[in-house]
Amino acid sequence: MLTFSAPDLTAFTTRVFQAAGAPDLVARRVAEALVDSNLVGHDSHGVIRIAQYLRDKAEGHVVPDAEPEVVQATPAIAVVDGHWAFGQVSAQFALEQAMRRARQLGIGAAGLRHAWHVGRLGEYAERAANAGLVTHILCNSVAARVVPFGGREGRFATNPLAWGIPIPGRPPVVLDFATSVVAEGKVRLAYTAGKSIPDGWIIDAQGQPSTNPADLYTGGALLPFGGYKGSGLALVVDLVGALMVGMGAPALPDSTFGNGMLIIALDAAAFGAADAFARDAAILADRVKDCPPAPGSQGVMLPGEPEAATRAQRLSNGIPIAEGTWATILEAARSVGVEFEAG
Amino acid sequence: MLTFSAPDLTAFTTRVFQAAGAPDLVARRVAEALVDSNLVGHDSHGVIRIAQYLRDKAEGHVVPDAEPEVVQATPAIAVVDGHWAFGQVSAQFALEQAMRRARQLGIGAAGLRHAWHVGRLGEYAERAANAGLVTHILCNSVAARVVPFGGREGRFATNPLAWGIPIPGRPPVVLDFATSVVAEGKVRLAYTAGKSIPDGWIIDAQGQPSTNPADLYTGGALLPFGGYKGSGLALVVDLVGALMVGMGAPALPDSTFGNGMLIIALDAAAFGAADAFARDAAILADRVKDCPPAPGSQGVMLPGEPEAATRAQRLSNGIPIAEGTWATILEAARSVGVEFEAG
Repeated sequence: MLTFSAPDLTAFTTRVFQAAGAPDLVARRVAEALVDSNLVGHDSHGVIRIAQYLRDKAEGHVVPDAEPEVVQATPAIAVVDGHWAFGQVSAQFALEQAMRRARQLGIGAAGLRHAWHVGRLGEYAERAANAGLVTHILCNSVAARVVPFGGREGRFATNPLAWGIPIPGRPPVVLDFATSVVAEGKVRLAYTAGKSIPDGWIIDAQGQPSTNPADLYTGGALLPFGGYKGSGLALVVDLVGALMVGMGAPALPDSTFGNGMLIIALDAAAFGAADAFARDAAILADRVKDCPPAPGSQGVMLPGEPEAATRAQRLSNGIPIAEGTWATILEAARSVGVEFEAG
Repeated sequence: MLTFSAPDLTAFTTRVFQAAGAPDLVARRVAEALVDSNLVGHDSHGVIRIAQYLRDKAEGHVVPDAEPEVVQATPAIAVVDGHWAFGQVSAQFALEQAMRRARQLGIGAAGLRHAWHVGRLGEYAERAANAGLVTHILCNSVAARVVPFGGREGRFATNPLAWGIPIPGRPPVVLDFATSVVAEGKVRLAYTAGKSIPDGWIIDAQGQPSTNPADLYTGGALLPFGGYKGSGLALVVDLVGALMVGMGAPALPDSTFGNGMLIIALDAAAFGAADAFARDAAILADRVKDCPPAPGSQGVMLPGEPEAATRAQRLSNGIPIAEGTWATILEAARSVGVEFEAG
């Protein structure tokens, strides 16, 4: 295992995307988003994506110097066309559109179409919460890997959703999860490591429960979390987070690749209970946190706490990256003429 | 088992609430809401509530002739004070506030405080969808029966959430569920019937998994659905669906009884993809529905389909009510001088 400081990794990643044709601000924005995912422990959304993003650029899927644009608007909503800019740039732009409206009217929304991979939803939810706003974010994607409850063929992507809620005087609540039982990356990790996976994650090509991760890649599928509830939320994400804002869904014929996204922002202060909220939200968070632990549990973690703890730890001790992963990243960087330099 | 027609049951229930002091329109609104829950098969939210509502009125918790009022507003949001009117009246009023704003601006929201029991969220989601609008509804309640993930004491109510989505040319998608694994009513049913319950529903007072429903009523608690994901959503419902709009939560000291509620309404047409949505939403619903069934499954049901099927069946064949339940309802009705009459 190698270890890197966040600033070194950010500077390196920025140079990679600059070399790939991204304007300076875009390269920096994508680099910071990837490294932030590493910092909070979601390495599947971190710098491991560099090679994929460079391939996406080479194949013309992502347009590094494209600029997102508002194509439809009311005082309360905006629809943003990403024009296939890096998703982190488009989603950030859409978030700002929703936030500005929420500050004026108490609620605002932004739909995003033609966005490349927007990355980790929790990043946006956390940023808005740090700026004092509540957000709810729905995002769909392209690979039909998740079965609807009662079915045996993939129809949904892992269709995540997120909530960010500022808690006055405390870190925000940041809830960000896939509507599948687990992210595909965890199955892939077990597969590469030759390990079995827990029951209840996947089914095989015949629709039977399986603990063999290889079955996912030979006609199997991921299960939705929480049975019909998670399955229903996955459908909602496709309908409201994508089709409604002008993007497709993997179960549709001839669907466009990319992420569809809906961001709803709310200003708690506009709802007339700001003083009570400021007082009671922190008390409620304490009361939930102070719940006696279940047998074998380390106790209750609030949504966002594991990520905040990992960030603190990795800012001090560095970001661990496996040697094989790092070799792949270096190879990709060299394809655009960039070498890593420690600061 | 007795059987009643929906019109007979509605007329009877209307007379009961009229006799309890509710204005005609209020009595009719509450009666229709209760009977509609019976019609769609959610009998726990049906006429079985009559006795409870009459007690609530006698104890002064619900004020049958109170009128809900907008106490805070912007062009995009409204905060409604229910003034302890019947929750069905207040929530209906709040829904209309959110819908009117969504029609003008593409999105609108209504918060509701001081609401008595609002009933089944799916009713509101379905009504808005039938009027062409998307809704997302969060609602908290008062009994701390659900543990946060990793804990062993109740902190949340069953805190349901709902989505309603109009699907052009098809019945709407209506997703409505508790953030606990099951509603408390199902555990109570098993308890009364002397049956055991599946593993994974509840823990006992020591935090150990239990299949004995009695354990819920001797210090045990319900588990959240989907582990940390459902637990996180339950917290979101308390924070955004209640504290933000000026209501309390059961884990807070001295919390006010009642339901807190947030309704977000969206007009898909405002997002500039109405034609594509009209075409693709139905295709997507078909593709999900046509998924080959998992072994042992009857196939995929879309959210709202089981309720629609039960409604069609009960409109034809009547609403079944157990004799013991009916005796309790009749006794409550007689306490306000009302007898049942078949039409």
